[in-house]
Amino acid sequence: MIPQDALSELQAMLGERLSTGKSDLSLHGRSETFHPEMPPDAVAYPVTTAEVAAIVQTCARHGLPVIGWGTGTALEGHASAPRGGVTVDFRHMDAVLEIVPDDMLVRVQPGCTREALNTELRATGLMFPVDPGANASLGGMAATRASGTTAVRYGTMRDQVRGLEVVLADGRVIHTGSRARKSSAGYDLTALFVGSEGTLGLITELTLKLWGQPEATAAAVCGFATTEGAIDAVILAMQMGLTPARIEYVDVATTRILNAADGADLPETPHLLLEFHGSDAAVATEAEHFGQIAADHGGSAYRWATKPEDRSKLWSMRHRAYHTILATRPGATAVVTDVCVPISKLGQAIARAAADIDVSSLDGPILGHVGDGNYHAILLVDRNAPTEIAEAKRLSDAMVAHALDLGGTATGEHGVGLGKLHLMEAEHGAAWDVMGAIKRSLDPDGTMNPGKLVRQN
Amino acid sequence: MIPQDALSELQAMLGERLSTGKSDLSLHGRSETFHPEMPPDAVAYPVTTAEVAAIVQTCARHGLPVIGWGTGTALEGHASAPRGGVTVDFRHMDAVLEIVPDDMLVRVQPGCTREALNTELRATGLMFPVDPGANASLGGMAATRASGTTAVRYGTMRDQVRGLEVVLADGRVIHTGSRARKSSAGYDLTALFVGSEGTLGLITELTLKLWGQPEATAAAVCGFATTEGAIDAVILAMQMGLTPARIEYVDVATTRILNAADGADLPETPHLLLEFHGSDAAVATEAEHFGQIAADHGGSAYRWATKPEDRSKLWSMRHRAYHTILATRPGATAVVTDVCVPISKLGQAIARAAADIDVSSLDGPILGHVGDGNYHAILLVDRNAPTEIAEAKRLSDAMVAHALDLGGTATGEHGVGLGKLHLMEAEHGAAWDVMGAIKRSLDPDGTMNPGKLVRQN
Ligand SMILES: Cc1cc2nc3c(=O)[nH]c(=O)nc-3n(C[C@H](O)[C@H](O)[C@H](O)COP(=O)(O)OP(=O)(O)OC[C@H]3O[C@@H](n4cnc5c(N)ncnc54)[C@H](O)[C@@H]3O)c2cc1C
Ligand SMILES: Cc1cc2nc3c(=O)[nH]c(=O)nc-3n(C[C@H](O)[C@H](O)[C@H](O)COP(=O)(O)OP(=O)(O)OC[C@H]3O[C@@H](n4cnc5c(N)ncnc54)[C@H](O)[C@@H]3O)c2cc1C
Repeated sequence: MIPQDALSELQAMLGERLSTGKSDLSLHGRSETFHPEMPPDAVAYPVTTAEVAAIVQTCARHGLPVIGWGTGTALEGHASAPRGGVTVDFRHMDAVLEIVPDDMLVRVQPGCTREALNTELRATGLMFPVDPGANASLGGMAATRASGTTAVRYGTMRDQVRGLEVVLADGRVIHTGSRARKSSAGYDLTALFVGSEGTLGLITELTLKLWGQPEATAAAVCGFATTEGAIDAVILAMQMGLTPARIEYVDVATTRILNAADGADLPETPHLLLEFHGSDAAVATEAEHFGQIAADHGGSAYRWATKPEDRSKLWSMRHRAYHTILATRPGATAVVTDVCVPISKLGQAIARAAADIDVSSLDGPILGHVGDGNYHAILLVDRNAPTEIAEAKRLSDAMVAHALDLGGTATGEHGVGLGKLHLMEAEHGAAWDVMGAIKRSLDPDGTMNPGKLVRQN
Repeated sequence: MIPQDALSELQAMLGERLSTGKSDLSLHGRSETFHPEMPPDAVAYPVTTAEVAAIVQTCARHGLPVIGWGTGTALEGHASAPRGGVTVDFRHMDAVLEIVPDDMLVRVQPGCTREALNTELRATGLMFPVDPGANASLGGMAATRASGTTAVRYGTMRDQVRGLEVVLADGRVIHTGSRARKSSAGYDLTALFVGSEGTLGLITELTLKLWGQPEATAAAVCGFATTEGAIDAVILAMQMGLTPARIEYVDVATTRILNAADGADLPETPHLLLEFHGSDAAVATEAEHFGQIAADHGGSAYRWATKPEDRSKLWSMRHRAYHTILATRPGATAVVTDVCVPISKLGQAIARAAADIDVSSLDGPILGHVGDGNYHAILLVDRNAPTEIAEAKRLSDAMVAHALDLGGTATGEHGVGLGKLHLMEAEHGAAWDVMGAIKRSLDPDGTMNPGKLVRQN
């Protein structure tokens, strides 16, 4: 419980923009997935960096947890409040502050969503490419080091953030990075805060790299006799220097679900869905080239298109896949796995996961960002059935153990939050203690998003 | 001075591979540039990670400084030993441990040089692209977050390192990153150690990303009426999505020097030198396209070639530029500036620097990695003339002050070392204290490369 004097301080500062309404607390304690609700004691809606700093200072003085909140789409209970405290919701700090076309940069507030940013950018010929499916906030995306379908060409949030403004645990405001394309001026604090999940400070401004909107876009779909064939085609394409903007794998189960729900008419085999960006000539060359590679690896029914209607027919089903899969079991929620392995091991990893899911009691269609070696099993569970959740976690942990054996990671893009905390020791060994030492050096009282990412004591 | 018992311990461990010979100490105290010699008390030549850990532990017990050494080509006195101690020279840990073509990865020891790696890779169709001119060690390049001419297309060391093995100040060995292409599993320790200049630990192994060797390469040269015209052409080319592998600027003074020394016959104007990588068709398209852009910005005498002989004629002079410039003043050394600014500000930054150099007593030809907004003035000084060194530092500091005003950084690629330490407060403000806090958390006794990068107390 939040002490009354702390509450009064915050109320005096924020007025209406401090909420302790039950439904608001409950909303800010929820996760998109299976994690139980863990509400904060209050939700603050700041409008300036100075306000964020003042909130953090108040919380520091009272030893209260502070949890950042973008759009709450993170999948591992990242933004929930297991120890209560104050959730800082950035929805009102959502401005696009400055677009610099010559330097292909933009300065935004953390609550700005990626779709809002791209709408603002439309007329400039520039775009922000990272696409985690959900219309997440850019602050949340930086905080989780998000990526998604386009990372294979454009990279992850790690590659897009040039600089940050951060409010530290003691209320100090720092600036990391610069507007230059590169720097060797000391420790890479920008990279340290990207992916830190609000455990080291709150991001109050981001300077992001932009990219040119592609002159042309082609979408393609190809069925494969086997998963191995699909993955070998991807490996070869990457080695030959093809630069697809997206390469997504969907397994047979997902193909069936998409056929049923979307009236698609795909052969019941694993599929790859691709997108190419570039000049008209370049996308045609890449699309044709990939068709040949696919044919050599058991690919069939390869189709590609550049017209928007045809493209969106091929791709809309992928964009809706998560919700379409959820809808196959009304009322269900999901445990979404997220291992990422060296691409040469992806066939093995998927085969083992699929076999484990097959003999389990749960459904778990598999799809993934195969160009990065990252796949998700969408394990469908009843939120109120502990045995199902336990079974899903068992399957997920087995996938992680296998991925670590293969030189991979427990989480390619979703992050640690609460749900992957127990896997960090196995993944990092003594390096996890180094993370703990850094956490203690920047947040000695442990008030920044406590209970997440580092070893708990 | 190193205490006798510490020396005996190290000698017992390393035998012949511990050196206290005067010339060896002197060699390991020297810098490529103007910094005075600061020798260590001993030089160790370990052959295994376990030996490195044992050396570091011995030094920790005796409170002795430990300084990593790759090839000693860093320009800011990074690897010198202002407080004595033990320099750890990685020359015998230079193996290419494993090449994984399917994952486009390589595992190397830190003493392996970039040229040695590329020789090993030749038959695989893969390459390691980062090219800082000098044949530096990969450990040193990671430690300084090096880049060079090819960063505009392939990125810097920040973008190539997938994982590290690091010996910490207390002798613990940790592993960061993984073999997967991406991860959200906690703080990005890999990025923290890249660019940390040996102040947080010694890198004993690196897992690096590889790239396909380009099918074709084209080189191009173009004169410009003005520096602004050259830079505007670069900005437009990048906005239009051209992906040159190198775009180098050389000023009039450099052009003259190259004409005189290399028998080149370039018009006495600023020039851009470019390289394109890709398929035969793609490099031809890009080279032609750049020619049109250049013509619209006062470019003239544009030539491009794909045959190796013709290409090397166009480019060899750039590769030799630094030594050719040094040779214009026999016996001179250089203060090499390294600011990096947003590319839209590069014209202003170079114009101001050139004007300052013009009215100073020193020569300082300017050249740079203009696609990244990074340029170097090679300020020629007599190592034994304190007034010249002071004048060069004054010019350099003025360039940095201007670069910071323009949203840039004091050092785009060379790093901090000793020479840029006094600029970090101005560049980072309170974020420099955060670097200090991280340093203290990982190296509480301050034995790892003391005197460098963080605030000294
Ligand atoms: C259907 C669906 C599909 C998805 N697909 C992908 C995918 O393909 N790739 C992918 O990467 N992710 C995916 N996700 C996960 C999610 O979208 C990402 O994790 C996203 O980055 C979360 O952003 P958010 O704004 O919702 O952050 P939140 O969920 O609000 O917060 C995430 C974390 O960041 C912290 N945080 C938020 N804002 C700040 C701030 N300003 N400063 C400091 N810390 C802050 C929070 O405390 C929390 O720890 C998907 C989610 C859904 C529901
Ligand atoms: C002619 C010339 C041109 C250059 N051009 C460029 C350029 O274009 N771009 C560029 O980026 N640089 C350039 N440099 C600078 C230099 O080549 C780079 O800084 C390079 O990365 C240094 O590598 P090294 O192996 O020589 O490292 P060293 O000089 O031996 O060491 C550099 C730093 O790294 C530390 N270190 C070395 N090895 C390790 C290790 N294994 N673990 C931890 N710390 C370690 C050292 O303690 C020191 O602080 C140039 C230098 C010269 C002489």
